[in-house]
Amino acid sequence: MTFFSYFSFNTKKAGFHIGIESYSRYNAALYNNNLNSRVMPKLDESYPEPKGELQLRVVAQPSDVNANGDISGGWLVSQMDNAASIVASRIAKGRTATMAMGDMSFMRPIRVGSVVCCYTHIAHVGKSSVRINIEVWSRMPEDTERNKVTEAEFVYVAIDQNRRIRSIEL
Amino acid sequence: MTFFSYFSFNTKKAGFHIGIESYSRYNAALYNNNLNSRVMPKLDESYPEPKGELQLRVVAQPSDVNANGDISGGWLVSQMDNAASIVASRIAKGRTATMAMGDMSFMRPIRVGSVVCCYTHIAHVGKSSVRINIEVWSRMPEDTERNKVTEAEFVYVAIDQNRRIRSIEL
Amino acid sequence: MTFFSYFSFNTKKAGFHIGIESYSRYNAALYNNNLNSRVMPKLDESYPEPKGELQLRVVAQPSDVNANGDISGGWLVSQMDNAASIVASRIAKGRTATMAMGDMSFMRPIRVGSVVCCYTHIAHVGKSSVRINIEVWSRMPEDTERNKVTEAEFVYVAIDQNRRIRSIEL
Amino acid sequence: MTFFSYFSFNTKKAGFHIGIESYSRYNAALYNNNLNSRVMPKLDESYPEPKGELQLRVVAQPSDVNANGDISGGWLVSQMDNAASIVASRIAKGRTATMAMGDMSFMRPIRVGSVVCCYTHIAHVGKSSVRINIEVWSRMPEDTERNKVTEAEFVYVAIDQNRRIRSIEL
Amino acid sequence: MTFFSYFSFNTKKAGFHIGIESYSRYNAALYNNNLNSRVMPKLDESYPEPKGELQLRVVAQPSDVNANGDISGGWLVSQMDNAASIVASRIAKGRTATMAMGDMSFMRPIRVGSVVCCYTHIAHVGKSSVRINIEVWSRMPEDTERNKVTEAEFVYVAIDQNRRIRSIEL
Amino acid sequence: MTFFSYFSFNTKKAGFHIGIESYSRYNAALYNNNLNSRVMPKLDESYPEPKGELQLRVVAQPSDVNANGDISGGWLVSQMDNAASIVASRIAKGRTATMAMGDMSFMRPIRVGSVVCCYTHIAHVGKSSVRINIEVWSRMPEDTERNKVTEAEFVYVAIDQNRRIRSIEL
Repeated sequence: MTFFSYFSFNTKKAGFHIGIESYSRYNAALYNNNLNSRVMPKLDESYPEPKGELQLRVVAQPSDVNANGDISGGWLVSQMDNAASIVASRIAKGRTATMAMGDMSFMRPIRVGSVVCCYTHIAHVGKSSVRINIEVWSRMPEDTERNKVTEAEFVYVAIDQNRRIRSIEL
Repeated sequence: MTFFSYFSFNTKKAGFHIGIESYSRYNAALYNNNLNSRVMPKLDESYPEPKGELQLRVVAQPSDVNANGDISGGWLVSQMDNAASIVASRIAKGRTATMAMGDMSFMRPIRVGSVVCCYTHIAHVGKSSVRINIEVWSRMPEDTERNKVTEAEFVYVAIDQNRRIRSIEL
Repeated sequence: MTFFSYFSFNTKKAGFHIGIESYSRYNAALYNNNLNSRVMPKLDESYPEPKGELQLRVVAQPSDVNANGDISGGWLVSQMDNAASIVASRIAKGRTATMAMGDMSFMRPIRVGSVVCCYTHIAHVGKSSVRINIEVWSRMPEDTERNKVTEAEFVYVAIDQNRRIRSIEL
Repeated sequence: MTFFSYFSFNTKKAGFHIGIESYSRYNAALYNNNLNSRVMPKLDESYPEPKGELQLRVVAQPSDVNANGDISGGWLVSQMDNAASIVASRIAKGRTATMAMGDMSFMRPIRVGSVVCCYTHIAHVGKSSVRINIEVWSRMPEDTERNKVTEAEFVYVAIDQNRRIRSIEL
Repeated sequence: MTFFSYFSFNTKKAGFHIGIESYSRYNAALYNNNLNSRVMPKLDESYPEPKGELQLRVVAQPSDVNANGDISGGWLVSQMDNAASIVASRIAKGRTATMAMGDMSFMRPIRVGSVVCCYTHIAHVGKSSVRINIEVWSRMPEDTERNKVTEAEFVYVAIDQNRRIRSIEL
Repeated sequence: MTFFSYFSFNTKKAGFHIGIESYSRYNAALYNNNLNSRVMPKLDESYPEPKGELQLRVVAQPSDVNANGDISGGWLVSQMDNAASIVASRIAKGRTATMAMGDMSFMRPIRVGSVVCCYTHIAHVGKSSVRINIEVWSRMPEDTERNKVTEAEFVYVAIDQNRRIRSIEL
């Protein structure tokens, strides 16, 4: 079963807090009030294993925290970008640039000292671009269980030395 | 008129793009092949001015480049997160956490030495969350013109010292 | 009214000069013992608004603190140098080097999480050099009031690719 | 003899003042136009040895360069602040804060890989403050000669855990 | 066959020991002159696969280079320490400190952009200490082959919050 | 007399250490259980003064700590590598690469704010390589006593621009 440690809802209250206070329900309620949002959480927690190939495995360091003392979402996206860039460069046989990132939601905070893993799965290879799905899982060194933090799709384009788009030779 | 300097298409050639080789057309073609994609570029270039309030103004430094020598998408998202966090903390009158980021596309590369500005516009304030639109514009110090680089919507939740979601008092 | 939070003044009295804790009096006493000193505080607090053009707006991060846990004076000067370099490069239409910095005093500490703004005002453009006045103001995200931290004059010279002084073409 | 490598002087002539490239003359001319300037270069090059006690000896790293690829003045001031803080903390037997910095001029650029040394000399110990003179000298590892880069006076105040000024016990 | 890319050997000959450039011969000669040396290279290249469990997988970034533009040995040891600390903390069920590092030799340089992997193998768990063997392998993203860079044994002791040695409960 | 502050043994207890609980005895016991170990602590504390020439003198900063809040062994090795590289480059009159590091043990932790000094002593200059002994001593700014932290031998090879081993001209 998925345990939602992050937001520890006080679930007795009316509103978006009935029941198990899952993050998904929370978001559902949140989004019902704001139907036009382009941000849609899509974290699927029904399987307990990471999908894809391990690309990065790093430790969140104290120098990575933001002013709140938390590992920031921005830092996490940087790791995801590093991870997917490895794959994109390998497929494109050379330099690539990040062209787009899909929406993502952050299910759990990452604590300093956590082991953060980025897994990648190639979604599509086009003439000049590569789409890569990335999952992030984290675990404290003393814990046995790892949890999914976020997932997203990133798009890379192959570029040449003058930053022009080039074809990917397969 | 908006000039797409990033991908400098060799537009005379047959192959992937007749005409003005705009990034949008490029993407349109790209996406026609892949209709189920969740990543949809949405950069609106029809107005020449940033929308919203200036939150951050930084210079991209050499230590910010990735292995390609480029300012990475991940670094840019970190700046956006920093910028929007300022607003979220002010509205929530305290600590917040990044809960979600909408999709975004990167229209232009950011060169080392560029002045990078993040503008924010509050989209929605809910019971416990804040939605903030962020635009990023950049300019080299010797240039007179600035250009939009990306835009996205970020969602923050107000949290207390134990990381529980709390209400935002208005 | 200007409140001196740095050194925790308790002075309710007029003119903020009564009591030995007054920063100005403190300095006066300090300097009477050392008349030849070249260090002279010059922070003018009589106006409540920053002078000049906003060049940088950054958040002081935990990784910027010194061994005391404080944001150091050195970090602040780095930001001022970054800010004024933007202006100097724009005026000199190219590469510049920092040639001199005027004396400065630090009126308040900068806390982690503060929004730090650098404002610049061009004091003089010479044949090969530019003098720029810089003011630094800071504010915590949840505060409504901002306070001046320091101000100084920096001098830049235009240099070519071989680091020789070159003329500035206006 | 003092050699001005920074601005690539070609002056074979005595007294290093002939020719418009002379740094001193350059400054003299600069200041004649702007007599009220508070920035006055004061680098005394008549002695070939550093004055004071070695406090810091560091190597300028690639990650310390600014957008021009130069080691910035701001980085240098950070090192000076670190160096003088060591002395101030030792004299004040505890925490100190940087209160003021005297003006300084930068005679030579610092190249990546240079060994940068900060020497300190205690100028004055007051009731609550310490004045410290700092000289910076640099040398490339393969060079036999070291050169003075800048010098300045920094002022520190002893503070307690609540950041109030406290007396220094001698 | 193992190829020594570091020192650009041209040795087509059997056993890679002919010619003065051979790393092994080089070292042999080096050590014959200095028999008492405690530094003994011990890199075993006879197997092509990493031994142990993958602990870290990082990308060497431009900000990690030293003044020569190379990824330094010191950076590499930091990664090894991070990697083995994860294991030591898991076994010791809490805080540990690095007590010793065995000798190591660096067979190949690590280029910016390389994917650097640290593999660990638990050598011994004592009453209060853990010995961990670490291998480092690297690969450029576009390469299919990975190569061993170094290996060493690190020793950790379990410590409590006051930094006293404590027993490890198994 | 040498005082072992690091591990603060509770020496009265049965179990691992009778008597003065010296680090050496601790290690002796540790190693008796594991005779084949290649890691042998060798810290000689019988003299109170650093041997060799001061190469680096730095302050351990908050951004240098690991996830435990300690200055890591990896950071320390980076400093040692920086220090010895200065010497190696000077002797080799150009670029060098770290080829090997001897084993080392860490006698004491380094606290944030410590002044860390690296002393070097040239052990041997070969045709293409340099062996350098490095000692690390640290001291808190307010302390009068400095203590040895570790020592080791590092080996550097002279390399040319293509990273081939080259001779050292004396």
